[in-house]
Amino acid sequence: MNDVICTVDVVLLTIKDNGLSVALLKRDREPYKDVLALPGGFVHVREDADARGAAMRVLKEKTGIVAPYLEQLATFSGPLRDPRGWSLSIAYYALVSFEVIGRAGHPDVQMLSVDQRLELPFDHRGIVDAAVARLRSKSQYSSLPCYLAGDTFTLPQLQRIYEALMGEPLNKVSFRRKMAEMAMLEAVEGRMEAGGAHRPAQLYRLKPALREHLAVLERGL
Amino acid sequence: MNDVICTVDVVLLTIKDNGLSVALLKRDREPYKDVLALPGGFVHVREDADARGAAMRVLKEKTGIVAPYLEQLATFSGPLRDPRGWSLSIAYYALVSFEVIGRAGHPDVQMLSVDQRLELPFDHRGIVDAAVARLRSKSQYSSLPCYLAGDTFTLPQLQRIYEALMGEPLNKVSFRRKMAEMAMLEAVEGRMEAGGAHRPAQLYRLKPALREHLAVLERGL
Repeated sequence: MNDVICTVDVVLLTIKDNGLSVALLKRDREPYKDVLALPGGFVHVREDADARGAAMRVLKEKTGIVAPYLEQLATFSGPLRDPRGWSLSIAYYALVSFEVIGRAGHPDVQMLSVDQRLELPFDHRGIVDAAVARLRSKSQYSSLPCYLAGDTFTLPQLQRIYEALMGEPLNKVSFRRKMAEMAMLEAVEGRMEAGGAHRPAQLYRLKPALREHLAVLERGL
Repeated sequence: MNDVICTVDVVLLTIKDNGLSVALLKRDREPYKDVLALPGGFVHVREDADARGAAMRVLKEKTGIVAPYLEQLATFSGPLRDPRGWSLSIAYYALVSFEVIGRAGHPDVQMLSVDQRLELPFDHRGIVDAAVARLRSKSQYSSLPCYLAGDTFTLPQLQRIYEALMGEPLNKVSFRRKMAEMAMLEAVEGRMEAGGAHRPAQLYRLKPALREHLAVLERGL
C-alpha cells in the first residue's frame, strides 16, 4: 500500500553450556543467501491474524518450534536495513529450554552464543542485542527465566539459569526467598533427580496459571 | 510490497488538572472522518528515515509539537483494526508539559482525560491504555515523569506529577531521597517561585545529560 516491506524476525534464545545462545539459520534466498541470520519472513496478509501470528508461523516453519513464551520486542525500520527497499521488521523474542531445540531436531538451526562475535546481515545483530538486554533486565524482577528451564527443574538448575542471565553468582538463601515470594513454582510429586554426590533434589515446575503471565518481584534480585 | 498499510500513531500525554490527558484530533478524512482519534498517518518511504522519524513528522504536522521524549510503545496489527485492509501501526508515546501544548496553540488539538470513557476509532483506545500503563510502570523507578514537568519546576510540583501518575500520595522525605538518588536534577540559580503563603521554593531542571536518557532507581518509589 505504501511500499513498505513488512517482515517479522524472531530471536529464539536458550541456555546452552551455562550461557545464552540464539538460533540462527542460513538464509535460503537473496539477499544474503547462505548467510546465518535470524529466522524471519514476510507478513502474509491472507494468513496471519496479526504480527504475533506471523512470528509464530515463521518460527514454526523455520525451526519446528512452538515457543511457550513469545514477546514483541520492538519494530526496526528504515530505508537502509534491507537492500530491497524501505522495510520494517516487527521483532519478537522467544524462550525455550535447550531440550526443546533438541527435540525439534531441525538440521538447519545453529545455536550460537550471544556473547561471541556474530556478523549478521540486515540489522540482526542490533535486534539480538536488544532482545538480550530486554531478557536480562526483566530477569532481575520476574519469573521470565523459568521459560528457559524446561518443563521440570530443580532449584539449583533454576538458580544457574538466573546466574547465567545476570552474569553473577546469587546467594542461595536469598534466591530461594525471592522464588518463594513470586509464588510461581509447584513441586512435582514423587519426582526427584539423582544428584550425584548430593541427596536427590525436589523437582519443580511453573504453576499452570503462570505459563502465559509473568510473576513479578516488587524488588529485584 | 506485501499489501500492508503501514502507519504510525502518537499518544501525546500531559498532566492537566492533576491528571493524565491525551491529545486527540478530529480526523480530516475517511474512515472515521470528524471522529476524535490519535494523531497518526502513513509512513512516507521517500521522506521518513525510520518509523521514529515518521512519528516525529506526524506529531509536528498535526499538533505543532516537537516532543523532547518520544518512545516506541509497540506495534499493533491485523486485518480488522482498519476498514481499509490488513494494517499495522507502530505506536509511540510522547510526554510534554501542559505549557508546551498551550504554546503550540493548535486549534484542533483536544486534551482529554485518559480516565474518562473515550470511544476511539480503530484500536486507539487499546493503544492509549498501553501507553498509560507503560508510563505508570516506568514512573515507579525512573526520571520519566520529569518530561511532564516543563523546563523548570519546584520539588512540590514534581511530587504532584509523580503522585498523579502513581495514583497515591507519596511521603515527601522519601520522595526527595529518591530524587536525590537519581542525581538527575540541578538547581536553577537565582530563580525562585513565590509560593503564596509558603516561602519561595527552589526551582530545578533536568540535567542536560538526562534530557534524552532516563535516570533509573535500583528500587522503586
